Amino acid sequence: MVQKTKSAGVLIIGNEILSGRTQDTNTAAIARRLNTIGIALHEVRVIPDIIGVITANIREFSKRFDYVFTTGGIGPTHDDKTAEAVAAAFDVDLVEDDEALQRLIAHYGGRELLNDGRRKMALVPQGASLIDNPVSSAPGFKIGNVYVMAGVPKIMESMLEFILPTLEGGAVIRSRSVTVQRAESKIADILLAVEKAYDSVEVGSYPKYTYGQPEVTVILSSVNEDELNRAYDDLLSRLQ
Amino acid sequence: MVQKTKSAGVLIIGNEILSGRTQDTNTAAIARRLNTIGIALHEVRVIPDIIGVITANIREFSKRFDYVFTTGGIGPTHDDKTAEAVAAAFDVDLVEDDEALQRLIAHYGGRELLNDGRRKMALVPQGASLIDNPVSSAPGFKIGNVYVMAGVPKIMESMLEFILPTLEGGAVIRSRSVTVQRAESKIADILLAVEKAYDSVEVGSYPKYTYGQPEVTVILSSVNEDELNRAYDDLLSRLQ
Repeated sequence: MVQKTKSAGVLIIGNEILSGRTQDTNTAAIARRLNTIGIALHEVRVIPDIIGVITANIREFSKRFDYVFTTGGIGPTHDDKTAEAVAAAFDVDLVEDDEALQRLIAHYGGRELLNDGRRKMALVPQGASLIDNPVSSAPGFKIGNVYVMAGVPKIMESMLEFILPTLEGGAVIRSRSVTVQRAESKIADILLAVEKAYDSVEVGSYPKYTYGQPEVTVILSSVNEDELNRAYDDLLSRLQ
Repeated sequence: MVQKTKSAGVLIIGNEILSGRTQDTNTAAIARRLNTIGIALHEVRVIPDIIGVITANIREFSKRFDYVFTTGGIGPTHDDKTAEAVAAAFDVDLVEDDEALQRLIAHYGGRELLNDGRRKMALVPQGASLIDNPVSSAPGFKIGNVYVMAGVPKIMESMLEFILPTLEGGAVIRSRSVTVQRAESKIADILLAVEKAYDSVEVGSYPKYTYGQPEVTVILSSVNEDELNRAYDDLLSRLQ
């Protein structure tokens, strides 16, 4: 039986990305870590802090993909709406989690220091399990196949490391690449020939300009390492 | 009559972003330029080089937003499928554009140097108009409210500058911001109070860690500059 690659969708939640004020780096970080365990990112959406929008996207992605990861909107302020939206997507109540509350009390140094904003970070959809946050204690959570993480990259990355060992991966896609100092248009026929010659191999071609000169990185990907290596050798000999 | 902000959606097309190999920077660049003329980015999707997926997303975004911008997938290789997908979305044929062909012939130095890959870049949906590409000549195109641009940031940015003067903008959203060295959870009540006190003003709060210390950037946004300024002064006095 051929093992398949699992699928994932990512929802980046936050007006700051849509306004261009903040450069999203979470997408690339999540994609790279998931690749290593055979989970391929199929789609990413950047959506605003609007409960109805978040809820609709959680529902759609949860049905379409094996795993859904969200970043952003779980902090202490009024524009943090992700937990409420996820609860609505799963038709459950938003409840105060006792374990989350204890962690926040410990982090802030006493129950009397837990103002409304801080206490809000203990609210999770009923039935969710917590995702550890070693940086600032306020946890993320998992419900169904949806993993809700913080938007701050440092916290997101630590949450992702906590989640990864719990995921069931699939066939890992291997890649090999070569960069050549030629215009992409000069090697288009070679790339097409390689793509056609090896069933399992996908050929990607990524042009850019370095010091004003065109160059192109060709990336071969496949779950079949033998075929990948043969395709790669073939590509190199055709490029000479 | 109150002028409204126009809406836009962005489709980032390309497996290289979904794999995490390439960090998308086009989203932030597009968002910032559109903001200056009163067009707000409502949603971004990163989707793979699959014709059916691209077509479905073009159709949906074209209906939902005033403007749609795509980046990626208009080069010379087999994995460049955007033009074909956009033609399908508008139910028109993909045709060779004579003006585009002439530009490519001039750029490559003669018709005899136009191989299949290069010639492919003259194909546009019937009825589309060209978007200039001063960097490498292969044009983007516009059809309906959809603007199809290259994925290479340098080329995308030059195409965007060509497009901007042709767009009808709306009310420009103004912003003012302040960064404070405090935990977000300490000022959540202040932010909520300001958000409630000024109807047109949206309050965003963006935490991060600098040298391990929490800080938060508070951004006020509004199409009403007077109210924005009053809210900003109020925010500063409450933060003292």
